[in-house]
Amino acid sequence: MILVTGFEPFGQHSDNPSRELAKAVDGRRVGGQDVRGSVLPVHHSEAAVAVERLVSELDPMAVLHLGLAEGRARIGLERVAVNALDYSIPDASGYRAIDEPCVAGGPAAYASTLPLRSILAALTAEGIPAFISNSAGTYLCNQTLYTTLHLITTRRLRTRVGFLHLPLLPAMVAASGLDQPSMSVATMLRGVEVTLEVIAATGAGELRRTR
Amino acid sequence: MILVTGFEPFGQHSDNPSRELAKAVDGRRVGGQDVRGSVLPVHHSEAAVAVERLVSELDPMAVLHLGLAEGRARIGLERVAVNALDYSIPDASGYRAIDEPCVAGGPAAYASTLPLRSILAALTAEGIPAFISNSAGTYLCNQTLYTTLHLITTRRLRTRVGFLHLPLLPAMVAASGLDQPSMSVATMLRGVEVTLEVIAATGAGELRRTR
Amino acid sequence: MILVTGFEPFGQHSDNPSRELAKAVDGRRVGGQDVRGSVLPVHHSEAAVAVERLVSELDPMAVLHLGLAEGRARIGLERVAVNALDYSIPDASGYRAIDEPCVAGGPAAYASTLPLRSILAALTAEGIPAFISNSAGTYLCNQTLYTTLHLITTRRLRTRVGFLHLPLLPAMVAASGLDQPSMSVATMLRGVEVTLEVIAATGAGELRRTR
Amino acid sequence: MILVTGFEPFGQHSDNPSRELAKAVDGRRVGGQDVRGSVLPVHHSEAAVAVERLVSELDPMAVLHLGLAEGRARIGLERVAVNALDYSIPDASGYRAIDEPCVAGGPAAYASTLPLRSILAALTAEGIPAFISNSAGTYLCNQTLYTTLHLITTRRLRTRVGFLHLPLLPAMVAASGLDQPSMSVATMLRGVEVTLEVIAATGAGELRRTR
Repeated sequence: MILVTGFEPFGQHSDNPSRELAKAVDGRRVGGQDVRGSVLPVHHSEAAVAVERLVSELDPMAVLHLGLAEGRARIGLERVAVNALDYSIPDASGYRAIDEPCVAGGPAAYASTLPLRSILAALTAEGIPAFISNSAGTYLCNQTLYTTLHLITTRRLRTRVGFLHLPLLPAMVAASGLDQPSMSVATMLRGVEVTLEVIAATGAGELRRTR
Repeated sequence: MILVTGFEPFGQHSDNPSRELAKAVDGRRVGGQDVRGSVLPVHHSEAAVAVERLVSELDPMAVLHLGLAEGRARIGLERVAVNALDYSIPDASGYRAIDEPCVAGGPAAYASTLPLRSILAALTAEGIPAFISNSAGTYLCNQTLYTTLHLITTRRLRTRVGFLHLPLLPAMVAASGLDQPSMSVATMLRGVEVTLEVIAATGAGELRRTR
Repeated sequence: MILVTGFEPFGQHSDNPSRELAKAVDGRRVGGQDVRGSVLPVHHSEAAVAVERLVSELDPMAVLHLGLAEGRARIGLERVAVNALDYSIPDASGYRAIDEPCVAGGPAAYASTLPLRSILAALTAEGIPAFISNSAGTYLCNQTLYTTLHLITTRRLRTRVGFLHLPLLPAMVAASGLDQPSMSVATMLRGVEVTLEVIAATGAGELRRTR
Repeated sequence: MILVTGFEPFGQHSDNPSRELAKAVDGRRVGGQDVRGSVLPVHHSEAAVAVERLVSELDPMAVLHLGLAEGRARIGLERVAVNALDYSIPDASGYRAIDEPCVAGGPAAYASTLPLRSILAALTAEGIPAFISNSAGTYLCNQTLYTTLHLITTRRLRTRVGFLHLPLLPAMVAASGLDQPSMSVATMLRGVEVTLEVIAATGAGELRRTR
């Protein structure tokens, strides 16, 4: 079982490709693994609660979070989640944060446990623009990657956890009138499929030191 | 009859979306107009010769040139072609140019005669990222737009002429490893179809002053 | 005599480097030429009136217009002015334009008559980031370059005319909080001095065909 | 005592603003603190050795590392150093790295212990473009920030540690011919002075948990 999550639209956006993709892969079977897609609220505390419930219920071998990264031209494979919340776009509850931790007393960062290098090679071979990103930002995307890695680590689970950041959809750019890169939902969906195939083929991770 | 042209690959590129699109629309019928697609050589003098032959042979009501604009995120509707050739990437014959005119003694620029504002509105309504561009550069794309407008003007034809600049294809960006925007061929093809529909509905242009 | 013009601040900007530079060079003597600096209103019709009055009064051997190009990282030596006004940021009188001509019935464009290649070489040798730009946009900067070149051409004057587009000042970027390039006023001022030296050494231009 | 470090030029660069600034502040006194400037080799193991020696010798209240971030428009106050080395530009010894740790078995990241928010406010008030950056990359800049924070943490020192990433110098951009932002050495130097004033006024940090 692999859990794939997307987010609801947020800020001035009326759509969110991560939501579309999480819905699109829900119920599929990839590389011998069932795929469960779920859409998370853009909420500084409820998103983590939802992930914790899903992990407890599903006991997935991997969690692949998806989120929107406006302005990016390629799919970003996030290398790390930092223990920082710092954003001016309010979340769904109107919350904003300046230099708060994701988890008080938590480590400065967690590294993603997905096989990023293999995923990048597979995406590139498939002709899908992607790169390994060194920052998932300090908004709810980074927070979700951090809190899920914190959950897995403190519970001593072998679940692999990672995050793909997605460009805007073409229609979102067309509607905005802004000069921003985009990626079609078909290309992104193929990217998620390829990523799930690599994750399924890699198997579960090692236990991580709790410290 | 509407003539659509693309270009062969050039520089370090092994593909060119403009070529794929010119081939894809060749032989179609859009808005009551036959469409003829043709691929031009990336050559500082042969491209114009090929266009002149096609215009003489086909007597099209419009010429829509397509070309690649590496680095751009949206389809660019070119407003104007300037009388300047200035490029360091050699063309197919190895030719480079510094501050040469496209046509010696020609006017400083020609304005596109396509209904750009209507095309932009139609593309935006269709969810295709596009904008009106104020510069087609000083490479062979600009030259081709200039020489075709010069041909139409000096021959006193009513043929409408314009240029769409296209982003890189996703596979070209994936192969390059560079951080560059791309657009899927499906999105671009829909963009060309929408553009042809608007052109067909608009009809031929007025005679332009030769000056 | 060389006339250097800048613009008043506009839009949300409280400053304009072109104004500072026009004031800074006013009254200087460069390469045997007196320099007169003047600040133009950001107004779709009054700017051209002011330039016409200054040209009539001063009979300069060259006119160097300066303006702000938010988002640019280097000094832009504008190659051409196109006969188009198209902007959504209102000018000082609240005026906006969509696809209007700068001069009804005027040619599609005028080429700058400054020795751009020599100026670029001199700036580069001085360590000042600069480039030859193929578009001055469709706001009042382009309009001013167009109307001055139109004036010179229709009056059959030998005055050289050109436009330098300048980056934001560092303090403007700091105040905005946006991720935008800037250039110090000292670097820009040296750039204008170098440009004036090249212009003074080049001398007046040839008469241009009115057509 | 505050230790300021810069780096030697690297890659295709013939200069490095961080080197110029480290030299410029060497021997100054700011906010009651002596400043010692030192230039580090761009070497994957020798840079850390040099820092360790300087920290042992000088026992500074703070270490401010400076480095070059080509392509950035503003001074970046690095929030975090991640335990990753991943770069294709060889260091001074020809070394390249793919997904190596900075310190084997070290934590995924260390957070900077400089008062970033106060420094940002002071720089902004001074009109110097700056921002809090969430990634120092995975080259030697990030490594140096990581290894110094690791040193301070494992030695249980109260020394504050941070990193400022600097744009290219204008002359470096002019020489490259590329479209890249730059910042004058005068603006950067003022930025370093302001940063040192804030650090001196803030005092030493708290002891950090070794984990």
